[in-house]
Amino acid sequence: MSYARDADGVRTAKRGGGGLVTALRPLVSHHDVTWIASAISDEDRSLAGAAVDELGRDGAPYRLRLVAHEEHAYRSFYDVVANPMLWFVHHSLWNLPYTPNLDRAFDAAWTDGYAEVNAGFAAAVIAELEVAPDAAVFFHDYHLYLAPRLVREQCPDATLMHFVHVPWPQPDYWGVCPERVRRAIHEGLTANDLIGFQTDRWRRNFVYSAREFLGEDVTPKTVVAPISVDTSEFEELARSEQVLAAERGIVSHRPDKLIVRVDRTDPSKNIVRGFRAFELYLEAHPEMIERIGMLALLNPSRQEVPEYAEYLRVIEREAKRVNDRFREGGWAPIDLQVDDDFPKSVAAYKQFDVLLVNAIFDGMNLVAKEAPLVNERNGVVVLSENAGAHAELADWAVSVNPFDVAGQAAALEEALKLPEAERRRRLESIREHVREHDVGDWIELQLAALDRVAARVPR
Amino acid sequence: MSYARDADGVRTAKRGGGGLVTALRPLVSHHDVTWIASAISDEDRSLAGAAVDELGRDGAPYRLRLVAHEEHAYRSFYDVVANPMLWFVHHSLWNLPYTPNLDRAFDAAWTDGYAEVNAGFAAAVIAELEVAPDAAVFFHDYHLYLAPRLVREQCPDATLMHFVHVPWPQPDYWGVCPERVRRAIHEGLTANDLIGFQTDRWRRNFVYSAREFLGEDVTPKTVVAPISVDTSEFEELARSEQVLAAERGIVSHRPDKLIVRVDRTDPSKNIVRGFRAFELYLEAHPEMIERIGMLALLNPSRQEVPEYAEYLRVIEREAKRVNDRFREGGWAPIDLQVDDDFPKSVAAYKQFDVLLVNAIFDGMNLVAKEAPLVNERNGVVVLSENAGAHAELADWAVSVNPFDVAGQAAALEEALKLPEAERRRRLESIREHVREHDVGDWIELQLAALDRVAARVPR
Repeated sequence: MSYARDADGVRTAKRGGGGLVTALRPLVSHHDVTWIASAISDEDRSLAGAAVDELGRDGAPYRLRLVAHEEHAYRSFYDVVANPMLWFVHHSLWNLPYTPNLDRAFDAAWTDGYAEVNAGFAAAVIAELEVAPDAAVFFHDYHLYLAPRLVREQCPDATLMHFVHVPWPQPDYWGVCPERVRRAIHEGLTANDLIGFQTDRWRRNFVYSAREFLGEDVTPKTVVAPISVDTSEFEELARSEQVLAAERGIVSHRPDKLIVRVDRTDPSKNIVRGFRAFELYLEAHPEMIERIGMLALLNPSRQEVPEYAEYLRVIEREAKRVNDRFREGGWAPIDLQVDDDFPKSVAAYKQFDVLLVNAIFDGMNLVAKEAPLVNERNGVVVLSENAGAHAELADWAVSVNPFDVAGQAAALEEALKLPEAERRRRLESIREHVREHDVGDWIELQLAALDRVAARVPR
Repeated sequence: MSYARDADGVRTAKRGGGGLVTALRPLVSHHDVTWIASAISDEDRSLAGAAVDELGRDGAPYRLRLVAHEEHAYRSFYDVVANPMLWFVHHSLWNLPYTPNLDRAFDAAWTDGYAEVNAGFAAAVIAELEVAPDAAVFFHDYHLYLAPRLVREQCPDATLMHFVHVPWPQPDYWGVCPERVRRAIHEGLTANDLIGFQTDRWRRNFVYSAREFLGEDVTPKTVVAPISVDTSEFEELARSEQVLAAERGIVSHRPDKLIVRVDRTDPSKNIVRGFRAFELYLEAHPEMIERIGMLALLNPSRQEVPEYAEYLRVIEREAKRVNDRFREGGWAPIDLQVDDDFPKSVAAYKQFDVLLVNAIFDGMNLVAKEAPLVNERNGVVVLSENAGAHAELADWAVSVNPFDVAGQAAALEEALKLPEAERRRRLESIREHVREHDVGDWIELQLAALDRVAARVPR
């Protein structure tokens, strides 16, 4: 939720569209919730401090408390430390011979930005806990690693939980952060009563790194709770007029076989190798020229970060190179569309024969759950072994190593060759799994684990 | 040892100068040894097959068996798989959003190159074991991961040991290799009776990844044996006329305080960040302009690999940038010398006030042991926490995180400010440690561990 003033000076509200906002909706619907968030706009800042009454999309009431940060501190927090530094550590994206270069500016951004903004959040949480001392506090993701410890120091009896949406690296990769930084992160997180992860793989990595940096006797309480989809909302969306209109557009142009990928233009998504894999496939299958296409719907992401701007340039260059190599008549192999058009993405979900999810590392990857849910062509999912979704869906997907371009080309071929009955069986199995483990499940798993932990903690 | 023909057609022999050849000398001196190595030159190839009698530098006799490989197979083995692929995996040097791209050429190089050359070595070992069935076989490093298993299959009772000179990455980084590659590597290594590592950190990482890829019930026998220096030979070398002449050259030009680094131009050595750290130091200490210098003696390395050629270009560019920024009269802060001049390196070892070893990852780093041994200025070692030598020398060094440029600048300052008595105490402690744990120790630790393991293995 972000606020502005319109031309007449009336306050307007815009709901955030991020996956997290959507995923947390069931929590808001069924509990008495105060959402604590950063004040972004000037109007946000004017409201900061007191809690505001709001209504969720489904009409459930909640309170919103906006935290104002000093502008420079917030930019350092967000643009220097959280993205790219921590995001790149979580997804193993650094080019270690050259990057990162942790200079005095990083030191300052850590102390005056990340630590400062975390302190601001902690103060807001502490103020809420004074009003509602029995409330459970839920921290989310890599932006708020220091806040839990600050809250714990003031409120030793508070119930604190943190959910980590991103992959957790193994201790040697955490070594990219200087000792004081990696220690502060692990000390901050372990101040929670419970820490949630998308998969057991990320959970085990966390326990391993916590012991490495804090000592072998550290025993953090953890839970695996894979994030998922609001399936009924999603199926409804797939029938909406906006999606149907976009789908007609795709159907009118689609080749016989359609490979789809839907991603942010993030270096972790492995878009360039995906194009190269498709190139290798076409090299080996000239009979598929003009009969197959890859539709890449890419949402431009964080273009103010140089690594992201560069990555988008390479994406465009590689798509052009592959298209120039194989172009034939009006046909080109890759249809690259860089914009933010969610209805079109859902339409593409319905139309894929193969969905390519080859992420370098990914906490979960919701595309791998959303797209099969609404697909209408018995489409096959080609899925990276480094995506969190792989832990749940591997049995019904074609697995790929994200660095093995030849392997990805072979996987595309395998997926396209699977008999119709087998394709249907796999798609229905994924669908069934996602319906049985939807986003409500994600919340319930966390709440149940928190109950178990709270029962064990003497207050 | 490599052979050629001189102008008169007489066979000439050139001893390899690598660290491994030197380090293994004590083994050769005290045991009945057959050295099995690749035939590199045409003359080598003409000798391949039968063992040749040779004398070590100290007069100890040994036999040499050269293994001829098909030229293309050898180039694939060496230039595609071993360097760069495996070297880059071992040292975490890949830029994962872009590299590696494992294409069909890599698949072929793995099968027809790496596996083929390993099979050639295994056949040579098996032939030797037919003559001397009680001999112990010592495999070295990342070039020969597949050979032990091939030998084991033919010679189930053979005594096989492997020493891994490089850092062992944690399992998630091994994920850069496709499943069949990482499995073959771990299966090959665990066919040995004993596997040696430089530090407990690399050893634990290996046990962890072996269990991850081969199953929790895998229990490889391992030993930690840090490689070291032939101290008496090294001290003698330091007094040699060649080194004294080089030292006079350095002394005649040296500034008041001298920072020295001696490295191959390998991306793992972190040379660029070292220059930037020195830049930050000068920025904060203008009073040291014209009074301090960094002497960077860099041995050009693997220039046929594009990443290495690019790294050397960046090294040269960064040195020039820092020099242009601070140049004053005839003085410039960085004296960059790119050549292969070992006597000059030893002379620089004697002359440093600060030795900078800031490697990104390094199995051991022998410079950190060699240089203090002969230093004559109570010089201080600034040492990366990711160098194997850190496990032994941390108490007497100034530790740095290799990615923390500001931290490295602070470490240079700290090292330069240490009181003379403290500098002497630290240097003498390192010297004592290296003398007590010299290269003979390295061999003895392995042989003793092998005896213990052999006693436990029923034949």
